Amino acid sequence: MSLTLYSQWRATAPYRVRIGLALKGLDYAYEPVDLVAGAQHKPAYRAVNIQRLVPTLDLGDGTDVLTQSLAILEYLDEIHPEPALMPKDPMDRARVRAMAGIIACDIHPLNNMRVQRALEAMDVAAPRRAKWTERWIVDGFNTLEPMIAKYGQGFCFGDTPTIADCCLIPQIYSAARYKVELDAWPAIQAVGQRSKEHPAFIAALPENQPDAVS
Amino acid sequence: MSLTLYSQWRATAPYRVRIGLALKGLDYAYEPVDLVAGAQHKPAYRAVNIQRLVPTLDLGDGTDVLTQSLAILEYLDEIHPEPALMPKDPMDRARVRAMAGIIACDIHPLNNMRVQRALEAMDVAAPRRAKWTERWIVDGFNTLEPMIAKYGQGFCFGDTPTIADCCLIPQIYSAARYKVELDAWPAIQAVGQRSKEHPAFIAALPENQPDAVS
Repeated sequence: MSLTLYSQWRATAPYRVRIGLALKGLDYAYEPVDLVAGAQHKPAYRAVNIQRLVPTLDLGDGTDVLTQSLAILEYLDEIHPEPALMPKDPMDRARVRAMAGIIACDIHPLNNMRVQRALEAMDVAAPRRAKWTERWIVDGFNTLEPMIAKYGQGFCFGDTPTIADCCLIPQIYSAARYKVELDAWPAIQAVGQRSKEHPAFIAALPENQPDAVS
Repeated sequence: MSLTLYSQWRATAPYRVRIGLALKGLDYAYEPVDLVAGAQHKPAYRAVNIQRLVPTLDLGDGTDVLTQSLAILEYLDEIHPEPALMPKDPMDRARVRAMAGIIACDIHPLNNMRVQRALEAMDVAAPRRAKWTERWIVDGFNTLEPMIAKYGQGFCFGDTPTIADCCLIPQIYSAARYKVELDAWPAIQAVGQRSKEHPAFIAALPENQPDAVS
């Protein structure tokens, strides 16, 4: 398979998939979508993904592209089982998926660019938007912290990266962008530190992408 | 296992799990959480689920409760494989999970009660909130429609219910609450019609729950 990932350097959903691809050691072509300039709304990208969101993963084999970061990560883990991004036990898998869901359903969708712009269009001023963004991060991280403290041993669940880490590390990056300090969440902070030494997480960093703007 | 589901009759995330439990033929105790009265913020429920959201599934075996509707549905499908709520092929599974993600990540989190209240607290007036709510439903349904038209044969994917249907039917219910007509989405509408004849979907209906308010 010749993979192509449609991505934007600091959008957190494609960042999750970059981590997953790097953990699996899979090569892929990087196709930047300039979300700030509105490239996602142009016909060229709409023809790829009518939802006009990133990521999109083209498998290069003529099948329909894959969308939705969690669906893509689970697919990659099923097709390329090693190294595993999910534990084997159903209950453990439910814990990992719950952590991923807290981020992918309850934090990120409320804070991404299309939502920030929608709030702006409803005349919600910048200070209130900042409070809004912080609120969902704080709520989500307050929920994640005891789970990671209980189930994590270096990473969110156990001592190897899972889909939960693929979600958490981009969300930590987003928290820093919005100036939310991690002091209240030592377990989350520790996973963030750990990821800094891991080559797959380093390869996936926003600043290491071809479309990064310094 | 003696299952207990913490639910609220018309919240769409526990509605998804009710459908899954009914499709699997699993009995459970129903524990209502009065979200309108703020019961989710009281110590009794915080002790169950610190995220203060529904659903929570207590397996009754002393293990930590399960949270996050998609994680719970995948768990139920792994523990009770028949009838299957997921196809077997990894690519097919990715399609089902993408459909579920479009609803559970890109529509519902933007429209649920805590978000409606947060918008209200930022002085976003009712007509704008209605437009906001409609926008995410329209965006999501526009994305889902061609997928269901292509992959569905009565249900979202194929001719038996999957996790995608567990998400879609509650989202159709929510669309009706917000007066979003389904005329533009015949494939979605057809799945909604089909579910009306299915006993598991009927059992899970909001109006058939013990805490329903007429």
